[in-house]
Amino acid sequence: MATQLEIARAGKISDVMKRTADREGVSAELIRDELAAGRLVIPANKVHVADNLEPAAIGRAVSVKINANIGASDVSSSLDGEIEKMKMAISLGADAMMDLSTGEDLDAIRERLIAECPVMFGTVPVYEVIVGRGVEDIDHKTILEVAEKQAKQGVDFFTIHAGLLREHLPLTKKRVCGIVSRGGALMAKWMVHHDRQNPMYELFDDLCDIMREYDVAFSLGDGLRPGCGADATDEAQIAELRTLGELASRAQEKGCQVMVEGPGHVPYDQIKRNMELQQDICNDAPFYVLGPLVTDSAPGYDHITSAIGGTAAAFYGASFLCYVTPREHLGLPDVDDVRQGVIASKIAAHAADVARGFGQAAARDRRLSEARANLEWDKHIAESLDPKTAQRMHEEACARSQIADSGDSADYCTMCGRDWCSVRINREVRDQF
Amino acid sequence: MATQLEIARAGKISDVMKRTADREGVSAELIRDELAAGRLVIPANKVHVADNLEPAAIGRAVSVKINANIGASDVSSSLDGEIEKMKMAISLGADAMMDLSTGEDLDAIRERLIAECPVMFGTVPVYEVIVGRGVEDIDHKTILEVAEKQAKQGVDFFTIHAGLLREHLPLTKKRVCGIVSRGGALMAKWMVHHDRQNPMYELFDDLCDIMREYDVAFSLGDGLRPGCGADATDEAQIAELRTLGELASRAQEKGCQVMVEGPGHVPYDQIKRNMELQQDICNDAPFYVLGPLVTDSAPGYDHITSAIGGTAAAFYGASFLCYVTPREHLGLPDVDDVRQGVIASKIAAHAADVARGFGQAAARDRRLSEARANLEWDKHIAESLDPKTAQRMHEEACARSQIADSGDSADYCTMCGRDWCSVRINREVRDQF
Repeated sequence: MATQLEIARAGKISDVMKRTADREGVSAELIRDELAAGRLVIPANKVHVADNLEPAAIGRAVSVKINANIGASDVSSSLDGEIEKMKMAISLGADAMMDLSTGEDLDAIRERLIAECPVMFGTVPVYEVIVGRGVEDIDHKTILEVAEKQAKQGVDFFTIHAGLLREHLPLTKKRVCGIVSRGGALMAKWMVHHDRQNPMYELFDDLCDIMREYDVAFSLGDGLRPGCGADATDEAQIAELRTLGELASRAQEKGCQVMVEGPGHVPYDQIKRNMELQQDICNDAPFYVLGPLVTDSAPGYDHITSAIGGTAAAFYGASFLCYVTPREHLGLPDVDDVRQGVIASKIAAHAADVARGFGQAAARDRRLSEARANLEWDKHIAESLDPKTAQRMHEEACARSQIADSGDSADYCTMCGRDWCSVRINREVRDQF
Repeated sequence: MATQLEIARAGKISDVMKRTADREGVSAELIRDELAAGRLVIPANKVHVADNLEPAAIGRAVSVKINANIGASDVSSSLDGEIEKMKMAISLGADAMMDLSTGEDLDAIRERLIAECPVMFGTVPVYEVIVGRGVEDIDHKTILEVAEKQAKQGVDFFTIHAGLLREHLPLTKKRVCGIVSRGGALMAKWMVHHDRQNPMYELFDDLCDIMREYDVAFSLGDGLRPGCGADATDEAQIAELRTLGELASRAQEKGCQVMVEGPGHVPYDQIKRNMELQQDICNDAPFYVLGPLVTDSAPGYDHITSAIGGTAAAFYGASFLCYVTPREHLGLPDVDDVRQGVIASKIAAHAADVARGFGQAAARDRRLSEARANLEWDKHIAESLDPKTAQRMHEEACARSQIADSGDSADYCTMCGRDWCSVRINREVRDQF
């Protein structure tokens, strides 16, 4: 059976393409042509499609997508807790979930999560490869076995850290933060220990074969992404990006769909250039960024530093934003952190779509603002990105200002109170101009 | 006694200029020259300077500043509550406080706040003018009396909505959200009722005389700022901006320091152009923006939509950011909203300074990241924008992962746990490349 890329290259339109086109309000032909050109992916494992996946597309021709990470680990949360986080993230608009679990029973966790997950589902197979063995003991055979097993389970995209080569390692010596990607650090340690090339690089064609069979999309990991502003856009990052560009073409030639992962920590003034470089070097493969964080100085608030960078990135070229939670750099996210992270990311994605003039993004803002101007609170809140939070704050304001009804009856905005309500005054005078 | 602008124009350097230069790490000559050119202001009422003000400069030659609004009102908070918010905002790095109180006892509130406020302090005098009278009953004499009284009390800058002219009102008819500025809406209502020009405009020279005497800086209010993305950069906004440009020159000729206020809600792609327009039309007077909010769709999270716009605005031309809290559009902020608003604004200001290459901004990020890479938790946290929040999250992670000591002793980052710590792995391998 062919992958979506192969079907598109053959000039055909699949059911999956049709469904994503309908969701986006674009033509199926556009989806097909962008897919064929490698500028768009639909991570949709055949197993997951046959089960419960609502396929979605990632690329510049469609709306910007966001991913939320979850994952059970030794130290913390239970599977039920992770499922709760996943459901909340999806209800708030997460377009993808990545399972970064690192504890015991990874198969049971993954199978259960996929069974409950209607959006695309990604993993980092090396996180399983390392379970029960030291980094040094990772072997080629296990890597392929794990990849094949996860592909069979229905994972839609794999982060594969194949671009970080042995010869790139010395380039990180000048860095303030060295290698901050977990997968990248593991690969570096393996290469140093064995004095050998990155096994993911050596196995790349074999991985392509497995992933092609199930149509698992590549998310080419940036193991050398900058971990602080001072390391941004440095030699190490760009050297790996060039390898990622080559690997993207190789995988596409093999019939696989490919996205490329990107930074990381990037000062605001360097984001545009980073996006242009990626598009240039990787032949416009969809770019999937973590952040970027525009300052290092805000631990506890990195959902905000990321939303700033993410908006700029998505405006200038990225198609897919990985959420960052407030607790990034400090600990694993709890359920409220997941909420904050998802919403911050949705804000960035939506703001970029508004700025790009994409589809109905600006119309959505307009509908909400019309309701706001008309003091139609129910509609105003229903149109918002997180109606539950908006409703709570509105009710608190109503209670404080002693408005009995939190619906549409109050003739003023609860922010400033009746006398000071510019909305009310505006309605009084606007017919008199 | 001369204003800072007049002293600078005379080629002299005041003690106030010296103090701000020292704080910024720039030369007093630069401060003087930028002041003389109207590109920088030091809102520093002589009464407040003589008392407890630590003067600070606003302009492109210095670091980006942020303002936090507080204000007691009928509906909600007490004076003690507002003072608590003010102290917290200042401790988190707010460079200015605006008192937007609208309830009773405004004089007592204002005097107490100024007495406790070491940073520049701003008001919107029309908020007092309207107390105890209908909008229609605002008269020219009261406006001047209130302005003079507040100047004597030590207020450092006034928002004056003098640029919204009678002839601009019809331009707002096509808008989705009309006039959303409270001061703007009041002036519009007065003009419609009296069929007369904006009293602030008519009184502009008299206001200059009062403000010049105490060196109260103008913050020329944008009564026609767009209240949603659909209204951004429209005819009404630009018409008022042209008037603000003329008024800025007139006030500067009279010896007054001037900033100009800006939007509002602005889609991300329009921010650069907005900043360039303002600088062009207002002859580079420092630009003070509210937001801008890059989408309308996130009530409950408008500190984030504003941080995105604020970073872009401050990178492209704004010098002063007014904070927006999560509760904007829904209710008055509580103490935690103030915290969230201040930090989001600080992130935007700092990220813009890093991107502009200003002073020690990037060096600060680097220091924090060096501490992060060295697992020096105490230093990492101390260098952060909100150490209290970072400390709390770090301690929670330590408790969860059963690390006894939250200081520098753990040899791994608390985010991923020991086995998965890229920082730890990186330190193991980096000497072997």
